[in-house]
Amino acid sequence: MSDRFVEVTAPSNIAIIKYWGKRCVDLNLPLNSSLSATLCQDHLKSTTKISTSPRLTDDELLLNGCKQSIPQNSRIQKCLSQIRSAARMQGIRQGNSSLDDIKVASQKMKISSTNNFPTAAGLASSASGYAALVFGMGKLLSVKGDLTPIARQGSGSACRSLHGGFVKWQMGKEEDGSDSTGYQIAPETHWEELRIFVIVVNDMRKKVGSTAGMQLTVETSTLLKHRVEHVVEGRMKTACDAIKNKDFPTLADVIMRESNQLHAVCLDTNPPLRYLNDVSFMIMDMVHSYNTAVGSLQAAYTFDAGPNACLFTTKSRANEIAWLIRNLFPTDSSDSDFFRGMSVTMSAPKTSVMQMIDLNAYSSNMIKYVICTKVGDGPRLVSCNDTRLLSCNDTRGDAAD
Amino acid sequence: MSDRFVEVTAPSNIAIIKYWGKRCVDLNLPLNSSLSATLCQDHLKSTTKISTSPRLTDDELLLNGCKQSIPQNSRIQKCLSQIRSAARMQGIRQGNSSLDDIKVASQKMKISSTNNFPTAAGLASSASGYAALVFGMGKLLSVKGDLTPIARQGSGSACRSLHGGFVKWQMGKEEDGSDSTGYQIAPETHWEELRIFVIVVNDMRKKVGSTAGMQLTVETSTLLKHRVEHVVEGRMKTACDAIKNKDFPTLADVIMRESNQLHAVCLDTNPPLRYLNDVSFMIMDMVHSYNTAVGSLQAAYTFDAGPNACLFTTKSRANEIAWLIRNLFPTDSSDSDFFRGMSVTMSAPKTSVMQMIDLNAYSSNMIKYVICTKVGDGPRLVSCNDTRLLSCNDTRGDAAD
Repeated sequence: MSDRFVEVTAPSNIAIIKYWGKRCVDLNLPLNSSLSATLCQDHLKSTTKISTSPRLTDDELLLNGCKQSIPQNSRIQKCLSQIRSAARMQGIRQGNSSLDDIKVASQKMKISSTNNFPTAAGLASSASGYAALVFGMGKLLSVKGDLTPIARQGSGSACRSLHGGFVKWQMGKEEDGSDSTGYQIAPETHWEELRIFVIVVNDMRKKVGSTAGMQLTVETSTLLKHRVEHVVEGRMKTACDAIKNKDFPTLADVIMRESNQLHAVCLDTNPPLRYLNDVSFMIMDMVHSYNTAVGSLQAAYTFDAGPNACLFTTKSRANEIAWLIRNLFPTDSSDSDFFRGMSVTMSAPKTSVMQMIDLNAYSSNMIKYVICTKVGDGPRLVSCNDTRLLSCNDTRGDAAD
Repeated sequence: MSDRFVEVTAPSNIAIIKYWGKRCVDLNLPLNSSLSATLCQDHLKSTTKISTSPRLTDDELLLNGCKQSIPQNSRIQKCLSQIRSAARMQGIRQGNSSLDDIKVASQKMKISSTNNFPTAAGLASSASGYAALVFGMGKLLSVKGDLTPIARQGSGSACRSLHGGFVKWQMGKEEDGSDSTGYQIAPETHWEELRIFVIVVNDMRKKVGSTAGMQLTVETSTLLKHRVEHVVEGRMKTACDAIKNKDFPTLADVIMRESNQLHAVCLDTNPPLRYLNDVSFMIMDMVHSYNTAVGSLQAAYTFDAGPNACLFTTKSRANEIAWLIRNLFPTDSSDSDFFRGMSVTMSAPKTSVMQMIDLNAYSSNMIKYVICTKVGDGPRLVSCNDTRLLSCNDTRGDAAD
């Protein structure tokens, strides 16, 4: 059967140890290893439907309903051609039983991808988008083996979105990038108490994209090299150990230092890159102030190439953090429109803590809304028209199986 | 005669190569050498009057009319006791002729210091204030020799305000700090075409002082050490050569990179230090945008531990920069209240430049006012009641004579 169809979803992820700088632009090979938490797809995901048929005459791509030019997008092209080539190679190795897969790999595809979060909100969609594309193509063509090196070439951080839980992207050493892969260091079930608030802030500025930005940092920052050679490895070990031991204060410390160092090397770039705005810094102040008041690190912020914050905390503190956000950042939105995702109850910190925090509210509507979420699973196969595609993998979607 | 009186003024300075981090807190010894331009005292200065008499029973200090507690200020104490001790040692070496100086050094002092710029504006007043104190005390007690190591112990950057023109603060190697001194690398007459705009922005935030801030950076930043050991020295040479050759584009480049790296290591501090605000970044954008439009670096920004900008440019570009500031940052103030200091004519850049700049104005009153100034001379002896004090030095006030 040469008409095939799959629908998959893939999660976004937030970096704990940051990726900033490539040693090879063409292959998307990073200067350092990175580490992320996969965000729960119930709240942030890309959904991709792919169909193929001998009757299609061209590859087609729709992003949020808008037709994209594939010839003008070399990253998409790379992902498509590499998965097709992997399918053919696998088919040849397996002999006659895979003739159908080989044939399908030569057919044109119709791909449609959407996000369940507003793209305009400035939330990174390339990680979940490329993860969904590569995972979906892999399912469609029954490709076995690790797809993270292919996803990596679409978008570096996409290789981390092919797994659930906590995921390390090993920088690798090979020139061809074959060992620059993503793998899970702990599943999403390992640390159920973790909570993550994605805080979407109002921001009107034009943005330097992360691809162009990190390249400029590599070319002009005198501090990046030191970070890459002398700082990241130690922090990676600290973060992995903290996750393994569920040691929140240690993880919180390294999360915030990493975020701040990323934005420090951005500022050390010429001309300087600036992704944080005043609201980002207000959120940082709130977190430091809460931690000081409670006497240990019970919340942590991290920012990627934009002003939106990801706050890490634990279930036992989430209600207080929610209360603080709501009270320091007044909004015209209702509670239910402001807090999205997992349900959250606001509760004021105890008096002794409140007395130590500056509770003067900022002006209204600096934060658009907050997505309350947690660490989640990897890509999911939602549906397909061929049971053989279903059986080649479970719906937890570990692409590296 | 044991009743003596002096009135002196001392300039502020703006760092080109930044000082951030001490290797010895007690002696104010820096981790790296720094370089500054002395700002013209006609527009920014501290004025200090010191009188002494055998009838005074206590040292007294007034800052902008408010009495200060000297016992609670160890930096003031250090400066006073060290100049007195230098006067006594010099008197002993010189024998009978200096008996009066030795006697006066034991008398109490009445010191009154004021700034001709609003302290609340967040402009650094410690450099000019300590320079005026130390220069004035030196005059009062006829102390010869280099006073910069004493001024340095009041406020690090004060040792650069004891000279006019372009001043290097050599970090030195001695444990006692005796070779950590400030000296002039070029006089204020060397490069008359330079213009400096001090842009005072509106800012309501609480501020971490630079003394506490830099100590926190030393303790927590993993990038500062690299900057100090591998970056500063090369930039120092570049900047000194650029000044010597009056090569503005090269100087502009190093000025901006230094400013950005200072704020990068501040952000790499834990918890992060943030001195720039959104308006600071708008000013940075304006400068980069102007430089791109004219095709070379004709303006440069630099920021110390606060959101106010110092813009360097040349006489031939100053009118265009003034026009840009006035048009991008609308204000309710009149031109004459907005532009202070040297008179400045606004003139629009030529059409081809204007077309390349985003001329959308920001919202009103983000900038309070702008002080137009240039590189200026060192401390001045304004008046005294003893002609011997006048003759020991000229009024250009080179304390290192």
